[in-house]
Amino acid sequence: MIADRLFKLVEEKGHVCVGLDTDYSYLPKNFADKFESKAVAIYNFNKEIIDATYDVVSCYKVQIAYYEALGIEGMKAYSDTLKYIKQKGMISIADIKRGDISKTAEMYAMGHFTGDFEADFVTLNAYMGINDSLEPFLKYVKENDKGIFALVRTSNKGAKDFQYIRDEDGVPLYETVGERIQLLAEENVGKCGFSSIGAVVGATNNEEGLALRNKMKSVFLLIPGYGAQGGKAEDIATYLICGNGAVVNSSRGILLAYKNEENGEHDFAMCARREAIRMRDDIRAHI
Amino acid sequence: MIADRLFKLVEEKGHVCVGLDTDYSYLPKNFADKFESKAVAIYNFNKEIIDATYDVVSCYKVQIAYYEALGIEGMKAYSDTLKYIKQKGMISIADIKRGDISKTAEMYAMGHFTGDFEADFVTLNAYMGINDSLEPFLKYVKENDKGIFALVRTSNKGAKDFQYIRDEDGVPLYETVGERIQLLAEENVGKCGFSSIGAVVGATNNEEGLALRNKMKSVFLLIPGYGAQGGKAEDIATYLICGNGAVVNSSRGILLAYKNEENGEHDFAMCARREAIRMRDDIRAHI
Repeated sequence: MIADRLFKLVEEKGHVCVGLDTDYSYLPKNFADKFESKAVAIYNFNKEIIDATYDVVSCYKVQIAYYEALGIEGMKAYSDTLKYIKQKGMISIADIKRGDISKTAEMYAMGHFTGDFEADFVTLNAYMGINDSLEPFLKYVKENDKGIFALVRTSNKGAKDFQYIRDEDGVPLYETVGERIQLLAEENVGKCGFSSIGAVVGATNNEEGLALRNKMKSVFLLIPGYGAQGGKAEDIATYLICGNGAVVNSSRGILLAYKNEENGEHDFAMCARREAIRMRDDIRAHI
Repeated sequence: MIADRLFKLVEEKGHVCVGLDTDYSYLPKNFADKFESKAVAIYNFNKEIIDATYDVVSCYKVQIAYYEALGIEGMKAYSDTLKYIKQKGMISIADIKRGDISKTAEMYAMGHFTGDFEADFVTLNAYMGINDSLEPFLKYVKENDKGIFALVRTSNKGAKDFQYIRDEDGVPLYETVGERIQLLAEENVGKCGFSSIGAVVGATNNEEGLALRNKMKSVFLLIPGYGAQGGKAEDIATYLICGNGAVVNSSRGILLAYKNEENGEHDFAMCARREAIRMRDDIRAHI
């Protein structure tokens, strides 16, 4: 089960998930100039980052929007990046946040769990309905060792618009979504105690986080927002169960680490590695 | 403004939006066999459908999931389909239901309003927050004559899971979303009375539909679910204002119309045309 594999990678290498939200403008100029197109440069940048970090992180999250922005060439770079992650024996999370129903959801599941865009995990938005949105993906979770992270609560300011709306019993929407995900997860728990049916939960304040975690004990969490977005290691600790059960994403913090070091642009991959190790140790120190 | 162009196309050609949710299995075998790949066959099928219908429908909705399912080749067919719609002088709606924030949303906007995947309208999911999710797209609405349809209420069974949750004042979530979209739309109304900031609203029962429409008077609607999904022309009428302000999508009803005619597979495009005209007249008869 992919959740067990992720659990073991977290035990061994720590909680860091490297976000390959790779915008062309992030690439050091001297490196970018070597390639014939933006998309090829981005793929090669990703490759260097993966080579420099795969022994100190647990997984990679590839944000598809950055690749869609570059059209067909970008989608090729996306596909190549996912294949390279697999080749390195690592786990890929396709951050696609797809949310649709019935046959359309089936097509998304096929698109992102097989073929050119095959990933180990996908992120999903279940606003259109839990079963309607997720069911076609669950078939792959059960039969093809795949996993999902459903959006439960994000940490952006606008999350308040809808996710925090309280129902007639005073329960915020994100909690209702979270409870539904927990019910699905309970039916599919792996040997290490977590399900391959996971959730995206932004690291916000501890009290609220703890309450949510207590309602979602079987759910593996993908936590965005470390570093650049303000999430701290002590906040992360709230979401861990016996030190595991979550991966923590950092994108710019790692990809752009070279900007904080003198002459970093000539050694961006090693700067990324140092930042990934610092982040790994920062989280471990707070467990 | 794209909403004015859509308004005029609706006046002239009717409310039908052809959904190019083209699955390879929908193609007549004798036609499909002519092409070297599934993706190329699908593109050519779309081309025939567009050629046969563009004078009797107002726009085309291309459901990206069906193309993502076929990987890079599928994305090429998606891009080619959008280009062909443009070449015919028609309006394209990219049914992508993307929902993300800040820089990621910017990348989606760039990806679907420029370059290989450029469309006139995109569908969006604002669950992560109205401004956070939509803002990067609104720039293109204002400056590049683009439009959006934000998900407000869908007509699938699972829509009840979250969209219908009532807040402490008894207001269902979909209505809160709808009101927020109306506020944005009001600021961007075109000459014909509607904004290029539109909404996806499933055709459900009339009373509820009327109440929602009354709260969203400036919003152009994209209504899915006609025919195959149970929506009827009399339900559609509820959502029209002076006979305009909405397009109605039919996908399988039109693409697979050939299955209802004897030897239809040899003339699938003309069968699609006849069904589009029937649907157009059915809706017009109920205004």
